Amino acid sequence: MKTFNTILAVTGASLLLSFSSLSAEECIPCHREKTPAAVRQWENSAHFKAGVGCEKCHGIDHEKMKRGEARVDMKACAPCHKKAFETHRSSRHGMGLHSGWGCTRNLANRNQKECAFCHDKDSAEPLSQVQCARFLKQSAEMAEVGCNYCHSVENSCASCHTNHNTDLKIVRDPASCAKCHMGPDHPQWEMWQTSLHGTLYGTLGLATGPTCQTCHMPSGTHDVSRGITMSSGGAAYPPEIAKPQREQMISICSQCHAPAFASRELNRGDAIQKQSLSIVKEAEKIILDLDDRNLLDPMPENRPPHPLSGNKLVLDSQLLYEDTSHIERLLFKMKKYDYARTIKGTYHQNPAYAHWYGNAELKMDLIDIKAEASRLRKAGQAQAAPVKGVGNSTETGLKVLQKKLERGAISETEYQEQKQKVLEEFLKK
Amino acid sequence: MKTFNTILAVTGASLLLSFSSLSAEECIPCHREKTPAAVRQWENSAHFKAGVGCEKCHGIDHEKMKRGEARVDMKACAPCHKKAFETHRSSRHGMGLHSGWGCTRNLANRNQKECAFCHDKDSAEPLSQVQCARFLKQSAEMAEVGCNYCHSVENSCASCHTNHNTDLKIVRDPASCAKCHMGPDHPQWEMWQTSLHGTLYGTLGLATGPTCQTCHMPSGTHDVSRGITMSSGGAAYPPEIAKPQREQMISICSQCHAPAFASRELNRGDAIQKQSLSIVKEAEKIILDLDDRNLLDPMPENRPPHPLSGNKLVLDSQLLYEDTSHIERLLFKMKKYDYARTIKGTYHQNPAYAHWYGNAELKMDLIDIKAEASRLRKAGQAQAAPVKGVGNSTETGLKVLQKKLERGAISETEYQEQKQKVLEEFLKK
Amino acid sequence: MKTFNTILAVTGASLLLSFSSLSAEECIPCHREKTPAAVRQWENSAHFKAGVGCEKCHGIDHEKMKRGEARVDMKACAPCHKKAFETHRSSRHGMGLHSGWGCTRNLANRNQKECAFCHDKDSAEPLSQVQCARFLKQSAEMAEVGCNYCHSVENSCASCHTNHNTDLKIVRDPASCAKCHMGPDHPQWEMWQTSLHGTLYGTLGLATGPTCQTCHMPSGTHDVSRGITMSSGGAAYPPEIAKPQREQMISICSQCHAPAFASRELNRGDAIQKQSLSIVKEAEKIILDLDDRNLLDPMPENRPPHPLSGNKLVLDSQLLYEDTSHIERLLFKMKKYDYARTIKGTYHQNPAYAHWYGNAELKMDLIDIKAEASRLRKAGQAQAAPVKGVGNSTETGLKVLQKKLERGAISETEYQEQKQKVLEEFLKK
Repeated sequence: MKTFNTILAVTGASLLLSFSSLSAEECIPCHREKTPAAVRQWENSAHFKAGVGCEKCHGIDHEKMKRGEARVDMKACAPCHKKAFETHRSSRHGMGLHSGWGCTRNLANRNQKECAFCHDKDSAEPLSQVQCARFLKQSAEMAEVGCNYCHSVENSCASCHTNHNTDLKIVRDPASCAKCHMGPDHPQWEMWQTSLHGTLYGTLGLATGPTCQTCHMPSGTHDVSRGITMSSGGAAYPPEIAKPQREQMISICSQCHAPAFASRELNRGDAIQKQSLSIVKEAEKIILDLDDRNLLDPMPENRPPHPLSGNKLVLDSQLLYEDTSHIERLLFKMKKYDYARTIKGTYHQNPAYAHWYGNAELKMDLIDIKAEASRLRKAGQAQAAPVKGVGNSTETGLKVLQKKLERGAISETEYQEQKQKVLEEFLKK
Repeated sequence: MKTFNTILAVTGASLLLSFSSLSAEECIPCHREKTPAAVRQWENSAHFKAGVGCEKCHGIDHEKMKRGEARVDMKACAPCHKKAFETHRSSRHGMGLHSGWGCTRNLANRNQKECAFCHDKDSAEPLSQVQCARFLKQSAEMAEVGCNYCHSVENSCASCHTNHNTDLKIVRDPASCAKCHMGPDHPQWEMWQTSLHGTLYGTLGLATGPTCQTCHMPSGTHDVSRGITMSSGGAAYPPEIAKPQREQMISICSQCHAPAFASRELNRGDAIQKQSLSIVKEAEKIILDLDDRNLLDPMPENRPPHPLSGNKLVLDSQLLYEDTSHIERLLFKMKKYDYARTIKGTYHQNPAYAHWYGNAELKMDLIDIKAEASRLRKAGQAQAAPVKGVGNSTETGLKVLQKKLERGAISETEYQEQKQKVLEEFLKK
Repeated sequence: MKTFNTILAVTGASLLLSFSSLSAEECIPCHREKTPAAVRQWENSAHFKAGVGCEKCHGIDHEKMKRGEARVDMKACAPCHKKAFETHRSSRHGMGLHSGWGCTRNLANRNQKECAFCHDKDSAEPLSQVQCARFLKQSAEMAEVGCNYCHSVENSCASCHTNHNTDLKIVRDPASCAKCHMGPDHPQWEMWQTSLHGTLYGTLGLATGPTCQTCHMPSGTHDVSRGITMSSGGAAYPPEIAKPQREQMISICSQCHAPAFASRELNRGDAIQKQSLSIVKEAEKIILDLDDRNLLDPMPENRPPHPLSGNKLVLDSQLLYEDTSHIERLLFKMKKYDYARTIKGTYHQNPAYAHWYGNAELKMDLIDIKAEASRLRKAGQAQAAPVKGVGNSTETGLKVLQKKLERGAISETEYQEQKQKVLEEFLKK
């Protein structure tokens, strides 16, 4: 390596690309000392057997590597693993999340349709919904360990396959999925593990118990979205997309189950998705009304601006869990954790997740949100009443209408009509 | 199968029972295509080896099967598995929970005493305490996946044994129990898994680490209630029942431990059960008092009626987690989750469940309940004070007494005495 | 055994030590009946093979054993296992926690420096910070199962090795650590299990995936604190201690990873520790201010005294989770659970623990604490305002200064200066 470094210094970086002869033989002696596990794993890998050396993936600019600027991403794997790359890119795993990896425009073999993940046609401006407000609020360090560790899957095969191993046992084990698909927001691994599917796998192995891969990556496809009928936030797809997706999933279930049974079970999930969503919507309505009446504590205008929407109330998928009022953070738990667990628990046939960790929490959230709303309303009345008397209710009424108009809950015509009514009411007094 | 269907159509349903010749040979050709896993599992089962074909369990009414009306329950298994059936029925697993499976009167080999689970002597009216108010509040879909998936154990051997497998490995693995005995309300599997018992099993297997089955199903008995000294809600049994049950459990522990050690450990559980219950009772008393003073928000009369008790406050085992006030939902968490985890964590020798997931949460619940009570009392005073002045406290005092009388907390005599005192106090002013 | 007991009675306890001939042969016949598993485990142990009999660990006073007073602790193991004993004693595992095991002064081979865990030089008075206020609040039974079950590790090799087994498989399995290192306050086992390290171990075993022991007990050392740069409460050590510790950990990581990579990952943990601590400090400041203004509900003077500090507000590592106000119990969750999970989740490379179970909860805690503070302030104003008018703010201002002085937040000089300002403000009115 010393010799190599000397040559580097002499010839300069611009000549580096001509070092096509740089090969594993030159890297290994040093790295056997410095990163022994990496070398050991590579030597036991299919890559080693096929003569794929260090430089194939890492390139040959050692200075860049040392500066941490030569991260190996999907571009390195794509030329040899075309089919996996393409199906991965077009699946949910491949979607751009703007999570610190920036634009994917430099990817080899980029599909033009991918741009639509983040941009309107012919626009370089990223769509706000593909940026993540929660990501934008993180420190650089938490963004790396808390966000990118998982979301790097969009651009890094090593997310699942690990860096130097090629043993397919790793990616065929549900534990490989567990690294990301766990936790309060989407405990798919936990709910599979204690479902009949997971417990049969634990006891009798693959012959009897299906894994994540059995249903979501049949025949080893990298299109993990196959058979999914809703967005990652749990919004149902329109029928023209959902129907063929559902048929795909039933055909997967049918390797073991009667199609009628599979269909009934999945339909149950659909019904529960709708029921759960209506609980979430009831909560959202309560919070919107509090905002209309200036009763949130603190109001959006009195707190740090939302990274995408500024000093407006944000309750959609960009809802934050910091710098909000207490009642919004209750909604966050409801939407991100309990709604997700109810639905995913049902589709994965896990009663404790569907009911206790999901549905019961969802209903308790609604109690908590109603209780907080009642407190805020009373506190608002206590403050308002002695100051402005009867006239106050007219004033509040007009402000609420104004806010409803602004957030698009009523049309201009409806606004004018309802305003008229409030004023007539006032004149009667 | 086509031929068979034709015959069915010709001969009519009333003649079906004479088709004793309908056998696996007729089902398998189609079902090898339509439900391949079921066929494969049956072909590898003890049933297959013993010549037990499809019709033995499923009957011969194929139309009924297709309509989903020929569910295989314990009636199908009982004739051959008598002892397992009987011990199961008389254990906690066999108790009627009215969870959508209806009356068990049609069961073969029904024990007359079973009726007493749900009915007073000579009454067809189900006892309210064997109906579950939480079940009655569910949607049909959540009732199925969230309740019946586990509670079907009362009527379905397949809950544990699965549908077509007969491999005893499945039911001898703690994972088999995990499917239901997990989650926030009774994480027995989780607490066993990380207890010394569970970790030794994980490392050295059955020879050193006992499983659920080792202690709760010794020698393969299906009487899973053996050695249990309290109801499933955690109410201690009277000594005449508890004492022999305890002796049974100590004799099970004694296969590995000195009886004195086992006894000491279990007695510790009893002490902690009593301590934990007194925390729960303190919380209940606070809520009852708020109800007496009309301070719950909302009060029971202003919300959807309880399915069993209407517009009354319900804090017993029928406590709901929806359509209640915030403080009642805190009690729900306390009773259903934290009380249960404290006790079960202790008996299963798991410090994190006994202390952090149980006892500490129980005590934090009490803080939260006291804080909410303080808020409700202050809000009540704020509303009441400016309106009625001093007279108000007399009025409230009389209302509280009335409510106490109604819920049986004081006798008619006590009511009259205390009413007299309040009035005398008023006259003094 | 009967003969033995007779001899005991005849010769008296003072002669017992001369019974060097009491040996396993005398114990086994009875105990094969009474504690069969213990005997079986011993017979399969390295102790049995080396001729180490019952009396070597248990002594020979059978009456004392029967009274439960002959607990086998580290003194029994130390003479033969000197190195393990010494490294264990000097590690975090060996620290005195006063958790019911009392003073360690009677330990064989006691290191003089150990006294400093609990005592100032030449003082017999235990330092309050080595007593645990939470332990002092427990019932005797919960103290045993909830505290000592794990904290007995300071004095009992059996905590990890179990009582009669000597199979090193037990202590080389992460499950052995899981018994204590799990749960809401420090889920190290859970976060390892679903990290890349844990999932590779689960799939490919030790050759690819490191365990707890790989990094924290390299080469089988019992010094489990090696490479740790902060106290068990998460307070960073000063650089002169932290720096060599960090170098030790990097040298452990370097068995698999490039030192630069390991260093970067660990530095990220340091940054997140600082960021997380500042969130905790913000919350503490809010609560201290409420206490200064007498707005906690209830105030420390109106509740059962803290076991170490009496009727003062305690927010440090002795913070309780019972008999406090709601806002302090929110801080408890923040510090003990969410702060710990954020940091440990980061160092153990688990995104769900670092972010969702840790960082997001920490930020939601802060929202909840701010909301509760807002409620308490409003309730305080509602009570105070109509009574005292403008003068009231001067009075409150002076009280707050007094309290700040008392808790050392301002110096006497600062107190006098600020007091002067408040009074001048009042005179202007």
